[in-house]
Amino acid sequence: MFGRPLSCCLTTLCWMAYGQRGKEEDRVSGAPKILIYSQTAADEYAGMVRAAGFPAVAAATPAEALVHISEAEILFGWRIPSELWRHAENLRWIQAAGAGVDDLLANPEIRPDVQITRVVDQFGGPIAEYVFTYLLHLLKPVERLRAQQRRHEWRPLPARDLVGLRMGVAGTGSIGRELIRRARAFEMSVIGLNHSGAEVPGVERVYRYDEWPQFVADLDVLVLTLPLTPATRHVVSEPILATMKDGAILVNVGRGALVDTKALLRHLQRGRLTAVLDVFEEEPLPADHPFWNLDNVWVTPHLSGPSQPRRVAEYFLANLRRYLAGQPLLGVVDRDRGY
Amino acid sequence: MFGRPLSCCLTTLCWMAYGQRGKEEDRVSGAPKILIYSQTAADEYAGMVRAAGFPAVAAATPAEALVHISEAEILFGWRIPSELWRHAENLRWIQAAGAGVDDLLANPEIRPDVQITRVVDQFGGPIAEYVFTYLLHLLKPVERLRAQQRRHEWRPLPARDLVGLRMGVAGTGSIGRELIRRARAFEMSVIGLNHSGAEVPGVERVYRYDEWPQFVADLDVLVLTLPLTPATRHVVSEPILATMKDGAILVNVGRGALVDTKALLRHLQRGRLTAVLDVFEEEPLPADHPFWNLDNVWVTPHLSGPSQPRRVAEYFLANLRRYLAGQPLLGVVDRDRGY
Repeated sequence: MFGRPLSCCLTTLCWMAYGQRGKEEDRVSGAPKILIYSQTAADEYAGMVRAAGFPAVAAATPAEALVHISEAEILFGWRIPSELWRHAENLRWIQAAGAGVDDLLANPEIRPDVQITRVVDQFGGPIAEYVFTYLLHLLKPVERLRAQQRRHEWRPLPARDLVGLRMGVAGTGSIGRELIRRARAFEMSVIGLNHSGAEVPGVERVYRYDEWPQFVADLDVLVLTLPLTPATRHVVSEPILATMKDGAILVNVGRGALVDTKALLRHLQRGRLTAVLDVFEEEPLPADHPFWNLDNVWVTPHLSGPSQPRRVAEYFLANLRRYLAGQPLLGVVDRDRGY
Repeated sequence: MFGRPLSCCLTTLCWMAYGQRGKEEDRVSGAPKILIYSQTAADEYAGMVRAAGFPAVAAATPAEALVHISEAEILFGWRIPSELWRHAENLRWIQAAGAGVDDLLANPEIRPDVQITRVVDQFGGPIAEYVFTYLLHLLKPVERLRAQQRRHEWRPLPARDLVGLRMGVAGTGSIGRELIRRARAFEMSVIGLNHSGAEVPGVERVYRYDEWPQFVADLDVLVLTLPLTPATRHVVSEPILATMKDGAILVNVGRGALVDTKALLRHLQRGRLTAVLDVFEEEPLPADHPFWNLDNVWVTPHLSGPSQPRRVAEYFLANLRRYLAGQPLLGVVDRDRGY
């Protein structure tokens, strides 16, 4: 543990220095060492964690994180570089700063005794607003009316309505439930799909993972909010896409690899379906990908569930207090289940 | 009543002919004579009314209507020409084919003993979809993201969220209530305003007509769904507009004359407010009106609550059966209240 004296000394000094700045000195002495990793918000997170009285060091690059990882008991962060794991000798708990942990679970180097938690219940609202923004935009002639306005042209145009359309929500966790609540307010008919077929309030029927063909057969709108696991990878396959109705809308706010991208592309190029895609198998979406040029595809750069650093930090702090009190953590990931 | 023999004979022949085609002959003999007036859907309405077994004549122009009006006991229609009233000797009931009856109530020639009904509970859903289409469009970077897509550019952009915004719904009838239900699903804070301050489910507080300044002071979004009456004409006046917060959004899906248009224009030209306007004091909006050219104004041609002829005809038929059975009608207009 003290095998790399320079970095360790620096690390200890860092933690001591941050600890002395903490508001709650009693928490600091003997407090677990916290490493915060984020390419975009490390300092912001660290500031909030320290302001709450907990020592923490921030790293925005793999090199910075490598200096501190061997000392850290707790790692709070996002898109954590995999080269850290082999040095994470003292790690006990990883708090992902987002909802998806497929990258962590795909890495066999994270020891089984390291607890992993993810943020739940924070992204549903913004993601549901994203979904309804695009659904309404697709159904209503907003763009044509704006063009008519520029020409000073008064001409009513027909609109399609959400009321009565059938939406399938694949994934009925906290994100799916926010979608379902809004869909019901718009008087849509809503069905769900989850691992076990467990009942969900507000939906007419819930299908299991092995009932995809029946689930999608009659949908006007399919929204994917599933976690990416071995059971869900490419679950929206060529046969499932072929089962969907002509003119149906696919919205993916889950993970790109839920969908067989090549099969989806074929259906989109034939104009059979419309897609609103916020996530992709490769991100950023390569500049030469055909999705960019299709009028019936709406490409957005993985922004539907933006992290709000303040709220994510509050979530971490609530979990940290549970951790210190020996209580069960929020958002615990079941590695076998995959989320 | 038989003073104009030619038209009367024609009329009687028409009604007899239509009556013989009716499915329910017993209803036809002695059935009240029904005139249907609509510039756009007269034949469609008449077809549905006759298919239900009731004789009816259709008129799409004032001249056609004048031929039949003196015989008619029931007038079902929209934008009914005012020259009909002086000949409406046998008229007992007017069913407006829409929600707004301000044009009818403004006409003193309609005898007080003629009952007026309007369509309620049909336009709330589509109007609420219109409102949320534009609110989400204004808050989210849909257009900028589409432009980025055309450039194959992957760059997340910030979005504003509906959650937490404060919406004021002026008019808490069937349209207002549909809005309120959706606003609550989006976790907006909702307040209402109506004539009496009567409580409304789902809103935090309801203001009365004399509390406009307090009602609008803290709103992010003001939606007008009020009927046009002497009490509501130009109720959104210069001082009320001046009380609204910078950056607030005004959505008018009620009637154009609820707003002092000149005062609104000044606020919009200064960029203080954003407006989504589906109704105007003069419709069609004159081609030289400054609203057309303002980027912070969304002009749409009075389409937010489109009549669906089938549903409006069903509403009329339900009311017709009540009328024939001597039961109270749906959507009765209180002429003193003004809607």
